[in-house]
Amino acid sequence: MSSASLDVVCVGNALVDVLAHADDAFVESHGMVKGSMQLIDDVVAHELYADMASAVEISGGSAANTAAGFASLGGDIAFIGKVSDDQLGEVFAHDIRAAGVRFQPPAAPDAPTGRCLIIVSPDAERTLNTFLGASSLITPDDIDELLVEQARVLYCEGYLWDQADAKAAILKAMRAAGAAGRKVAFTLSDSFCVDRHRDEFRDLAENHVDILFANEPEICSLYEVDTFDEAAKHVSGHCELAALTRGAAGCVVITSDGERVEVPAFPVDQVVDTTGAGDLFASGFLYGLTHGRDLENCARLAGLAAAEVISHVGARPEVSLAGLAASNGLA
Amino acid sequence: MSSASLDVVCVGNALVDVLAHADDAFVESHGMVKGSMQLIDDVVAHELYADMASAVEISGGSAANTAAGFASLGGDIAFIGKVSDDQLGEVFAHDIRAAGVRFQPPAAPDAPTGRCLIIVSPDAERTLNTFLGASSLITPDDIDELLVEQARVLYCEGYLWDQADAKAAILKAMRAAGAAGRKVAFTLSDSFCVDRHRDEFRDLAENHVDILFANEPEICSLYEVDTFDEAAKHVSGHCELAALTRGAAGCVVITSDGERVEVPAFPVDQVVDTTGAGDLFASGFLYGLTHGRDLENCARLAGLAAAEVISHVGARPEVSLAGLAASNGLA
Repeated sequence: MSSASLDVVCVGNALVDVLAHADDAFVESHGMVKGSMQLIDDVVAHELYADMASAVEISGGSAANTAAGFASLGGDIAFIGKVSDDQLGEVFAHDIRAAGVRFQPPAAPDAPTGRCLIIVSPDAERTLNTFLGASSLITPDDIDELLVEQARVLYCEGYLWDQADAKAAILKAMRAAGAAGRKVAFTLSDSFCVDRHRDEFRDLAENHVDILFANEPEICSLYEVDTFDEAAKHVSGHCELAALTRGAAGCVVITSDGERVEVPAFPVDQVVDTTGAGDLFASGFLYGLTHGRDLENCARLAGLAAAEVISHVGARPEVSLAGLAASNGLA
Repeated sequence: MSSASLDVVCVGNALVDVLAHADDAFVESHGMVKGSMQLIDDVVAHELYADMASAVEISGGSAANTAAGFASLGGDIAFIGKVSDDQLGEVFAHDIRAAGVRFQPPAAPDAPTGRCLIIVSPDAERTLNTFLGASSLITPDDIDELLVEQARVLYCEGYLWDQADAKAAILKAMRAAGAAGRKVAFTLSDSFCVDRHRDEFRDLAENHVDILFANEPEICSLYEVDTFDEAAKHVSGHCELAALTRGAAGCVVITSDGERVEVPAFPVDQVVDTTGAGDLFASGFLYGLTHGRDLENCARLAGLAAAEVISHVGARPEVSLAGLAASNGLA
């Protein structure tokens, strides 16, 4: 195993978020399941957008947010994802590079840059409606194996599993990482996503993934169990490390050799928009892990990064997370 | 004079704001004058954007912000401005309509939708760098005289004066409004804009404008005087009504028949981003004026709307201004 020249490489959907506030009646009347992610086509995207209130555009995408947060902590990270040669593609590329993430987009496909129409509810919960566009057209050819081999950790988002070519692209990246002796990290992304791909996600957890990220509904759905403790037992037999979030109750980190670390959520004055909470949790955790921190420190950095992002609209940090970590004794 | 079926029609630049934080050194090293607006071409826009931090896109444009704020107060308002048939044009059109403003864009020109690259400084001051794009291509043909005649007030932004065709468009609108017995309102927009067009702006104030909006540097620049009181004396001889803002010191309203109303600024917990402060001041003032309020009430509504918009990033209200006015005894 050669020495790594990069901390992490992320593979994920390249999306621009379109965030607007709406009440629960809006979410219900549009047939959304509050708090979840659904894929929508171009037609539904236009109809929904027409119904939405005045919005804000901020670069997003789950693994891309993780990459931005990781860079904000001071880490060296690259992102692989696909945008179009259009204004939103320019916005995405600008923002992720400005955040300090290495990004060389593959050749632009003949589809508009993907966007995620996000309804932010009065209780700060977010409901995602994703028009994948160009992002869904990522293929194994877009995976730069040399880049993957250079990174100590490969991090992939479960959302990509909805497209056959994207799935093949992830598997190619995972094989390249495994062959180079790198760690493979994966997030289950969304409980409905787990529902759609349970068998394959279980196979991934057992055979490909070293570090698994999931929230409580996702990990319970993966193993079709009712309680968090049952799910935790299952996952400890499969992955070297599982970082499991429980919303306001904090997180639990479980290792395959029986270690269990619990850390409470970092206190937040006012939760404004939970978009990106899980993504930024992964930023902090991966940063700690790739910088020699113990598991408790990893979990605390994860909680701090998540707390920053839920205190404002949008899924990318608004302040330097490195500075925030330093002022909270986590540098 | 037939009865008006609309409160206000606005003419202005149709822009999407691209907001990023940066320190004063960034503003200086890029040759900007902090707090002002400069026009930039496509090349400079690309260079500056490349240097800017990760940004947020929010619909903007001075008079368009005023229109959005006016609608948020419950008023009936239309906006005239030009966007392209591109993603940012779609964003602009969506947002202004979602805000409750009537907007039927003229045929799209062969130029991208305009954008304003905004640097937000640590002290919340904003510096504007405007690439006008499609917005600058507004011509007299784009002025719907029937629409102008229907509105009790025509409101135009001084920023449009930088383009010959746009200037002709405003003059056409002002003539249509005057002929229909409507009031003409105008904002001086920016002290550098006043410098560029001082003689024409003075002529406008003397001969076309009934209601003038300006901040202290703008009105002092217009009359080339050193003190606010001298400027106030000049303007009272020219316009029926002048609503003059003095930042944190509040505002002064002056009428041609010698009335003078002073109202302190509405208190704000934390000033986050002053983008849109003047625009939203105009929203509140025009709303009061078109709804039978006395001048003090107009000025208080103006201050309240400005206070809301400077308490967050972006130049459009994030909450219902009608609700805010009600809860502050200004409904």
